Parts: sequence; structure tokens; C-alpha cells
Amino acid sequence: MIVLNGGSSSGKSGIARCLQSVLPDAWLTLGTDTLIEAMPASGAGIDLAPDGSVTVGPAFRELERAWIAGVAAMAAAGAKVVVDEVFLGGAESQCRWRTALHGLDVLWVGVRCDAETAAAREVARGNRITGMAAQQAELVHKGVTYDVVVDTTRTEALDCAREIARHVP
Amino acid sequence: MIVLNGGSSSGKSGIARCLQSVLPDAWLTLGTDTLIEAMPASGAGIDLAPDGSVTVGPAFRELERAWIAGVAAMAAAGAKVVVDEVFLGGAESQCRWRTALHGLDVLWVGVRCDAETAAAREVARGNRITGMAAQQAELVHKGVTYDVVVDTTRTEALDCAREIARHVP
Amino acid sequence: MIVLNGGSSSGKSGIARCLQSVLPDAWLTLGTDTLIEAMPASGAGIDLAPDGSVTVGPAFRELERAWIAGVAAMAAAGAKVVVDEVFLGGAESQCRWRTALHGLDVLWVGVRCDAETAAAREVARGNRITGMAAQQAELVHKGVTYDVVVDTTRTEALDCAREIARHVP
Amino acid sequence: MIVLNGGSSSGKSGIARCLQSVLPDAWLTLGTDTLIEAMPASGAGIDLAPDGSVTVGPAFRELERAWIAGVAAMAAAGAKVVVDEVFLGGAESQCRWRTALHGLDVLWVGVRCDAETAAAREVARGNRITGMAAQQAELVHKGVTYDVVVDTTRTEALDCAREIARHVP
Repeated sequence: MIVLNGGSSSGKSGIARCLQSVLPDAWLTLGTDTLIEAMPASGAGIDLAPDGSVTVGPAFRELERAWIAGVAAMAAAGAKVVVDEVFLGGAESQCRWRTALHGLDVLWVGVRCDAETAAAREVARGNRITGMAAQQAELVHKGVTYDVVVDTTRTEALDCAREIARHVP
Repeated sequence: MIVLNGGSSSGKSGIARCLQSVLPDAWLTLGTDTLIEAMPASGAGIDLAPDGSVTVGPAFRELERAWIAGVAAMAAAGAKVVVDEVFLGGAESQCRWRTALHGLDVLWVGVRCDAETAAAREVARGNRITGMAAQQAELVHKGVTYDVVVDTTRTEALDCAREIARHVP
Repeated sequence: MIVLNGGSSSGKSGIARCLQSVLPDAWLTLGTDTLIEAMPASGAGIDLAPDGSVTVGPAFRELERAWIAGVAAMAAAGAKVVVDEVFLGGAESQCRWRTALHGLDVLWVGVRCDAETAAAREVARGNRITGMAAQQAELVHKGVTYDVVVDTTRTEALDCAREIARHVP
Repeated sequence: MIVLNGGSSSGKSGIARCLQSVLPDAWLTLGTDTLIEAMPASGAGIDLAPDGSVTVGPAFRELERAWIAGVAAMAAAGAKVVVDEVFLGGAESQCRWRTALHGLDVLWVGVRCDAETAAAREVARGNRITGMAAQQAELVHKGVTYDVVVDTTRTEALDCAREIARHVP
């Protein structure tokens, strides 16, 4: 199992797709985006303010806890999974995942990108709301520990993926 | 947990979104589309022929088995989940889910739609490849048993969802 | 040229795709959605309120005027075009199009759908903001004149398209 | 009017969105993707082979000619338009646009990206079919003349957009 953690527009999804391409075997990619897509359109306790800050309520926390348990169970059942995550709570978020993934082989990967570059890429993606990239660039790595750290500021997603793949047993 | 089973273009996804709107509490919707989206772009053992027939290989079966185990674990961990599924193997597919969901409260829902109407809706969705709707309309229900059956041929998704919601404890 | 006018969730886009499938020759489909997609993410003078009402400012009007002129020029240059439109201003909107399309062969098509049914389909589409369907169901037809009127409340998009196709010279 | 020309995965779309953000006034972005989206699902004479090579037939050429005339008319009617294009025919493609845009103020922009880097980004985008990026990287610039050339290999889209914006009157 590979857990990618990085802020919005840091390039995690591109790395995840590249990992699926360079790794032997078929890997699934699941992550925050999958969970949000699965939630009711009304939102279920996650809110995005006009300045790009994200607030998460208890209803979302409950769903997320079950989601993490489910992804862990997929891995335990033999699926190779790339998790594409945003640790909004930093070390605390990692702790939640670490507990759920106990006993599984996990490669923790930090996906870094300079705040300014991530903000520029957010504009290039045409998001209606901007600000998330800059706000999350440092926040999500606070107190988190990694096996590998890649930085997309000056390295292509495919090269980052190759570097990560070297650490996959 | 609610498991919706129906062929392509039978209207399952619309019903799932309506269920998320009419049911109290926040329900997650996960399904075949989520799994396929999570797989490598190269496909991992699921192939769609130009006539709309779908062939599934052993690599896909392996991933699917782990996927089902994971979705079951989410429900066991307390998440309310609508599963939006296509039982390509009919009774055998249901059996796989039934085994994984053992001990959980499950409402089995058949989503029917006349083959001709489903094929017409497939054209309206603008899919590049057509034929799936007609081929799957009967196939996916073969030998499957349900708690509720709805038919979208002449009933709106929202009304189907309300009918299903009446059976949710 | 075929101009489809109807409210949000009335089924215009599905009819447009079916027309592209049933008509001989290759037809382009362009419409309000194309224009909005082409605009800056910041919006350029079109606003969607939480109750589903749409407000259009002068900046949008300017772009729309040029957009209509361009679509007319495509048709004049020989392209067969299905226009998928929402006449928020009713007769006045039609007038703007009629002026631009002067001299071209145009089939004006009203796409109707009961307000309640359109609102139900809006829920099934999982839009974050609901209310547009109900608000626009009557509004967009006010004072507009048609060559053909179809009603998607109880007729599939493909059958509506076949009915429209019978009026295409 | 700004015409961006570059191969698949060269970063044109990101630059177009950044231009919409950095330029004063509201600019529309239209391009090859808009045209392909507007065409029938069956394709209308444009084919993508498994190796990523694109073949264009006479039906597509006809639609494209009308499309170009229409975009030119939008600009003539006062719209500020960023055209996001792939000159598959190199100088010949530019010639077609140049003729249609005669009399309009046009900034011709080449968007370059090393073939290897574009190919890497194609993998990161998760396209089912790869090969287009590498094949088009040089091809689309053959014999084309520009007012500005940007290179996304080592420059962010937002910086490229700022460089281009300096040349907009």
C-alpha cells in the first residue's frame, strides 16, 4: 500500500496515475476525491469557503473513519492500493490512517510543492475557488513522517513516481 | 446498506443520487463506476468490445473481490452505503456480494428498465460505444433475488428512490 | 439549423445527442453550456444563487451577443448546428437569435417538461444547487414561438429527436 | 485574439485558463477540444489510433472550416477569444486560420514542450491512449510562425501566460 499525502494542486493525482503505469501489477487509486464524489451533493459536513479554507464537521469525520476502515480492508484482502490523501489534520490524520492500516505494509510518501507553484497550478486548473493550494502546502505535512518525500516543484510526476516505485518492495 | 443492481443505462446512478437526497443521514454511493475509475487507465482486465459486450478477466476479478471486502468493511464500520452495481454474472455476482456482506443489514434492489428504453437512453447519453444497455437489461437480473424491484421505464428516478426508501429500516 | 429551447433539466442535451445520432450528416451541438465552459472560471457576469435563480450581467450579455454571431457564422459557412439553449429572457432571447440567424434555415424547437418532473430529474443529476429546473420550466417559453414542440415528461429523448428529425428538410 | 498552438499535453489549456485569469476583461477559450466535444459521439471523421496518431477525414475538415469561420465571426463581433489549437497540418493549418482571421488583431503563440516531458505528462493525465504527446510535439510547429513562443518544459503555465499577456495590446 502506498499513501500519498500532499496539499491541493501539489500533483498527487498525477503521481498516482504514473504509479499505476510504472508499477507491475494492477494498483487501485482511491482518495479524498473518491470519498467526496461518493458523498451526497449537499456535502455531508465538508465545506469550502470562498478563500479556499476547508472546514470539516463531525458527519464527515464519521464517514471518513468508515472509509479508511474500508480501504484498509481492501488492502488486507489483497488489493494493491495507492491512497491519494490530503492530511488536513497533519500528524493527527496520519495517526488515523496508521491505526487503520496496522499490520499492513505501507509506504508513506510526502508530496511537496512550493506554495507559490501550487497556487499557480491551481489557477491553471481553472478552479472556481482558489486559495486551497497555498493554504494546504505546509499545513498537511505538519508532524507527518514519511518513507519517501518527492517534490513536484521542479520534478515531473512521472519521475516522482519512478522514485517512489524504487521503494515499493 | 442498499445494493442497487441493474444494467447499463437502467437509471441506477440517478436513483442513487435521489436516495442520497431523500434519506435522512448521509449515505455514500459507491459502485462499479468507482472501481473502474480507480483502476489503471490500461484497464486491468476489463474490456468493452465495439458491440457493447463486456469481458472480465481474472485480474479484474481479484481486484473486485478486494473491493467488495472493502465496501463491506465500510458498512461494518458504520457507514451507510448505496452500492450501484452491475451483476454481469447474475446470481453468481449476487452470491459474491452476499457472502461479503454476511451479518450486515442489506436491502437488495432490482433496477429494471425495458431493453429498448435503456438502449434509447444510452444514445441520449452520447456514449461512443452503444449496445451495453440492450445486452445487460435482462442478463444482470438472471437468478438474482430482491427485496424491492423498481422499473425506471415509466417511473422517475426520484419516485423509485422514494419507493426504495420506504423499505429502509 | 435546429434551435432547442428549454429549461434546465428539461432534457435538451439528451435530445441533441439523439439528433446527432438519428440525423444523416454530422451535426455539431453547441449551446449555453459550451459558452459557460468557455468563460473564465470567475464567471464573467453570470451568477447562480443558492435558490437556483440565474442573474446575468452586461459582461455576459456582450459575450453572448458575439457568441450568437459566431454560431450563426458557422451555420452560414455550411455547418449543420444543433443549438442547445435556455431562453432566460423568453421572447426577447429568441429575438436576439432570430436577428442573428436571419437568412438561415432554422427549425425552432420547444423542449417542454413538467416543472415537477424536471425538478425530480435535477435531483437525480446530483446538482449541488437545485431550483433551476422548477424556476425555468415555464419562464423560458414565455412568448417564444416554435415549429415543433416536444415534451420529455413522458416521451424518451430519442423519440423526441425522431419527431424533430421529421421536420428537418 | 490569441491563438495558442501546441501538441497534446504541451500545456495549452492550462495557459489558456491562466490567461483568462491574468488578462483584464473576460476572454473566452475555445479550441479543438470544444469542436470535438460538439461533434457526434460517432466521431465525424476524426480517428485516434492505438499508437496515438490522429487521422482526419474530409467530414471533419468541412466542420472545422465552418468552426474556424464561426470563431472568427465571434472575434469580429467583439469577443476576446483565446483559441487553444493543435495545428496537425503545421503551416497549412495556420494558413487556414490566418485566412479566416484576416483583418483581426491576432497574437500567434507557440506552446512548446520537450517531447519526452509532454509524454510524461500524458501518462500523469491518465489517458487511455498514449503516444499523441510525443508524436505531436514537433509536428504541429512545422513551418508555423509566431509572435511569441513559450516553453512549458521548465516554466509554469501561469508564468507563460504572464509572458504572453505582455504582448497583448
